[in-house]
Amino acid sequence: MSTDKLILNGQTVADFMKEDMASKVAILKEKGIQPCLATILVGDDPSSATYVRMKGNACARLGVHSIKVVLSADTSTDELIQEINKLNEDPSVHGILLQHPVPNHIDERAAFDAISIEKDVDGVTTLGFALNAFGEAEFPSCTPQAIMRILDFYNIQIEGKHAVVIGRSPILGKPVSAMLLNRNATVTTCHSKTVNLEEIVKLGDIIIAAVGKPLFVKGDWIKPGAVVIDAGYNKGNVGDVDYEACFVPSSAITPVPGGVGPVTIATLIEHTIKSAYKLSENA
Amino acid sequence: MSTDKLILNGQTVADFMKEDMASKVAILKEKGIQPCLATILVGDDPSSATYVRMKGNACARLGVHSIKVVLSADTSTDELIQEINKLNEDPSVHGILLQHPVPNHIDERAAFDAISIEKDVDGVTTLGFALNAFGEAEFPSCTPQAIMRILDFYNIQIEGKHAVVIGRSPILGKPVSAMLLNRNATVTTCHSKTVNLEEIVKLGDIIIAAVGKPLFVKGDWIKPGAVVIDAGYNKGNVGDVDYEACFVPSSAITPVPGGVGPVTIATLIEHTIKSAYKLSENA
Repeated sequence: MSTDKLILNGQTVADFMKEDMASKVAILKEKGIQPCLATILVGDDPSSATYVRMKGNACARLGVHSIKVVLSADTSTDELIQEINKLNEDPSVHGILLQHPVPNHIDERAAFDAISIEKDVDGVTTLGFALNAFGEAEFPSCTPQAIMRILDFYNIQIEGKHAVVIGRSPILGKPVSAMLLNRNATVTTCHSKTVNLEEIVKLGDIIIAAVGKPLFVKGDWIKPGAVVIDAGYNKGNVGDVDYEACFVPSSAITPVPGGVGPVTIATLIEHTIKSAYKLSENA
Repeated sequence: MSTDKLILNGQTVADFMKEDMASKVAILKEKGIQPCLATILVGDDPSSATYVRMKGNACARLGVHSIKVVLSADTSTDELIQEINKLNEDPSVHGILLQHPVPNHIDERAAFDAISIEKDVDGVTTLGFALNAFGEAEFPSCTPQAIMRILDFYNIQIEGKHAVVIGRSPILGKPVSAMLLNRNATVTTCHSKTVNLEEIVKLGDIIIAAVGKPLFVKGDWIKPGAVVIDAGYNKGNVGDVDYEACFVPSSAITPVPGGVGPVTIATLIEHTIKSAYKLSENA
């Protein structure tokens, strides 16, 4: 019955979050504090430029200031880290986002780890990763946290459920596996070397697709009644999930676009506002 | 057929490791360097005291110096951290082990994180946890690494296998799940809130029992031919696995005692020797 099917609307979740954020921004402004997110874009990848612009626009809509640092594609790791250090030291900046991916010659991990933990609103530092795995991160990675927010917003039970995560990247598959585990799901993490992936996915009550391949997850991989979360975004405006096919067996599913994406951006801004609060208290 | 059954003998693995360690200690001593492990015991738990003594004895057998710091049960977190800092600053100490568990009033996580990453030979720091999850730790947690060493010593294939880890502690279940994942296993992490644990365990080609309950894993939970690793050690000299019952369906199994334990201690000492090398190079 189509009425039993739940479409997990990320825009609805993001709009819900924005009410709280707007009131917090107003309080901060009364105190003379202007929350500010600095984004760093290295090179001229058009998709990355679009993401950075979307984040800046979302900040503007919420009254959060944003600074864009655009560096040429031939920037060295050292030069990038120098820019990050400037932002670390700038008291008017509350959050720093280094747009992933950076050009290949840059040591992305070293650059991520140059971001001070207080301003790591995107949750990309090595230390932040571990704190998240221990359930103690101030700012978990934004996409994993967006996934958790969607599940919670729609009252989807996590405890005791079998969650299957497809993907193991340090900013998505691994942290979302840890967050689901900390919420008492039984968690299976799959990847390109998984044998019989279809059978493993079929075990899942909750499926997280974070593999970065268009329409990768097929409809007949989904156990009837499972919840399907598509954290992918690929060329052609499609996710990692074959939405039309997976819609049928699932009990709930995120669309692409309009699923995880808007909540990820809202989470990033929420973290920036929270950071502004904390940094202003410690100032 | 009993000849098809592989008993994974931890003492054999530890003895193999010791040959390499003894030659490295000899080279260090020629350079005038005496590798040294400092162990800290807080309170008078007899099991903990036994573990610390075993580690000290194992050091002595390999020509590694060991220092025992014994603190009273009413030591505060601050006092413990002061002791750790002294050891961090002592150039004659190459590794620091804080015996787990500490008394309840102590912030164990804060104490672990006071250990400098260069001397965290037991792999307990938050940063070390994340580095391990990224496959980049100098010193992964000793018990998880011991498990990997046993699997490798006996040429047990990990890639593409379904590993089921029972337990999710920050020094055992979580890091061993990460290590198996980084070696291309499909990894399911289970715990006290897992529903249908028996059915989940039955999926596993490799079972890691790290739950801390005596004889918890039953024989009929084991898929025929699975490899069973018992990382538990409980009162009565028994592990987390019902060995007699799990022996029957398994293709390979670690005994308790004489399985993971000796390799864990050997790994700790190996890390201390490696740390002495590195710290002497940077001196």
